Amino acid sequence: MIEEKGILFILSGPSGVGKGTVRKEVFKRKTELRYSISMTTREKRPGEVDGVDYFYKTNDEFEKLIEQGKLLEYAKFVNNYYGTPKDYVLETLDRGHDVFLEIEVQGAMQVKQNFPEGVFIFLFPPSLEELKNRITNRGTEEEDVILNRLKEARNEIEMMDAYDYVVVNDDVDKAVDKIQSIIQSEHCKRERIAAQYKKLLEDELS
Amino acid sequence: MIEEKGILFILSGPSGVGKGTVRKEVFKRKTELRYSISMTTREKRPGEVDGVDYFYKTNDEFEKLIEQGKLLEYAKFVNNYYGTPKDYVLETLDRGHDVFLEIEVQGAMQVKQNFPEGVFIFLFPPSLEELKNRITNRGTEEEDVILNRLKEARNEIEMMDAYDYVVVNDDVDKAVDKIQSIIQSEHCKRERIAAQYKKLLEDELS
Repeated sequence: MIEEKGILFILSGPSGVGKGTVRKEVFKRKTELRYSISMTTREKRPGEVDGVDYFYKTNDEFEKLIEQGKLLEYAKFVNNYYGTPKDYVLETLDRGHDVFLEIEVQGAMQVKQNFPEGVFIFLFPPSLEELKNRITNRGTEEEDVILNRLKEARNEIEMMDAYDYVVVNDDVDKAVDKIQSIIQSEHCKRERIAAQYKKLLEDELS
Repeated sequence: MIEEKGILFILSGPSGVGKGTVRKEVFKRKTELRYSISMTTREKRPGEVDGVDYFYKTNDEFEKLIEQGKLLEYAKFVNNYYGTPKDYVLETLDRGHDVFLEIEVQGAMQVKQNFPEGVFIFLFPPSLEELKNRITNRGTEEEDVILNRLKEARNEIEMMDAYDYVVVNDDVDKAVDKIQSIIQSEHCKRERIAAQYKKLLEDELS
C-alpha cells in the first residue's frame, strides 16, 4: 500500500474575485478535503461553536502563538486577530488528509514562507470590469473606497507569480472542476510518489 | 482572449502495463486531444488509410527524415521503422490543440530529449505479479521470453524518474480520470498562462 501524506492547497486571489463562493462549492461536492478551521480573537457569536466555526482565543493567547511561530499566517482586521493554526494543519496532513485554505493574498504569502511545499492556486477575475462590479455591488461604499480596492486588487494580481496555478473564475462550476483536477493531478506528481512506488516494487522482489 | 499553444502529453510505461487500452479509453471519452499519427515503413494493410492509420514511407524516405531530425522519436521493430513526425506534432500544437502520444519507454526518452517541454505520464502496473500475468497472457511465449520481458519491465520502471506524473493502472477508468485531471491542471499552470493574464489586464487598463 502507498501511504501518502496529505497536501496543503491554498486558494487565494484579489478581494472580490469570489474566493468564498468557490470554496463553498468545493466543499459542497463529494470531497475528502479537510477545511482548515481558523483561529480568532473576535467574540463568539450566538450559534457558533469553538473548534467548528473558529478556535476562539484571547488576545494574549493569540499573541503568544504568534511569538511561538504557531501560526501559518495571521492578520488583524478591525482590532481582531484571525489566523491559521500550524499544528492543526500539519497534524491533519500527517494523518494523510489534504487540507484546503481559502485566504487573502497577504496571508497566502505568509503561508508560502512558512510552508513552501503547499500548492498555491490563484483565483483570477474574468475581467477588471467584472471585478469592479463585484467590489461595487458588495455594499454602499464611496467612490474613493471602491477605487482604492480596485487598485489593491491590481497590486494583488501582480503577486500571481508566487503561485503554482491560475484559475479564472468566469464560471464557478468550471473553476471548481479545475481545482478538483489540480488536487487529483498533484497526487500523481512523480516527485511525490515515485520513491514509494519503487519501494513497493523492491518489496515484491525481496 | 487567452490564446494558448497546445500541450504535448506523452503516455508511456513498461510493456504489458496496458498503455494501449488506457489510450483508447482516453479517446473514447469526450476530448479535444489530437492523437499523433505515426510514420512507418511497414506495408499498408488492407483497409488502412495513409494519414489516418499511419503515414506510410519507404525505407529511404524514413532514413532521410531521421538524418534531417524530422522525428520526435523512432524505433525499428522486425525490420520496419516506426516514428513520430515532428512537424505534424509541432504544427498541431501551434494551432492550439493538445497532442497525445502513446509510446514505448525508449521512444518517450527520445521525445524527452527532443521536446523537454512535453508532459510525461508514466503508467505504473498495480503490481509486478499483475504485470507478469499480463505479459504471460498475451500469447504462448516460452518461459525465458517471459522472464526476459519481466526483467525489461523492471528496467523500464527504473526510468520513471524522467517523468512528470505517475498513474497506477489498477483500474482503467480511474487511470483515465487521472490523465484527464493532469491535462486540465497543466492548462492552469501559472508559468504557462500568467504572462498572458497580466497582458490581458494591461490591455484593459490602457
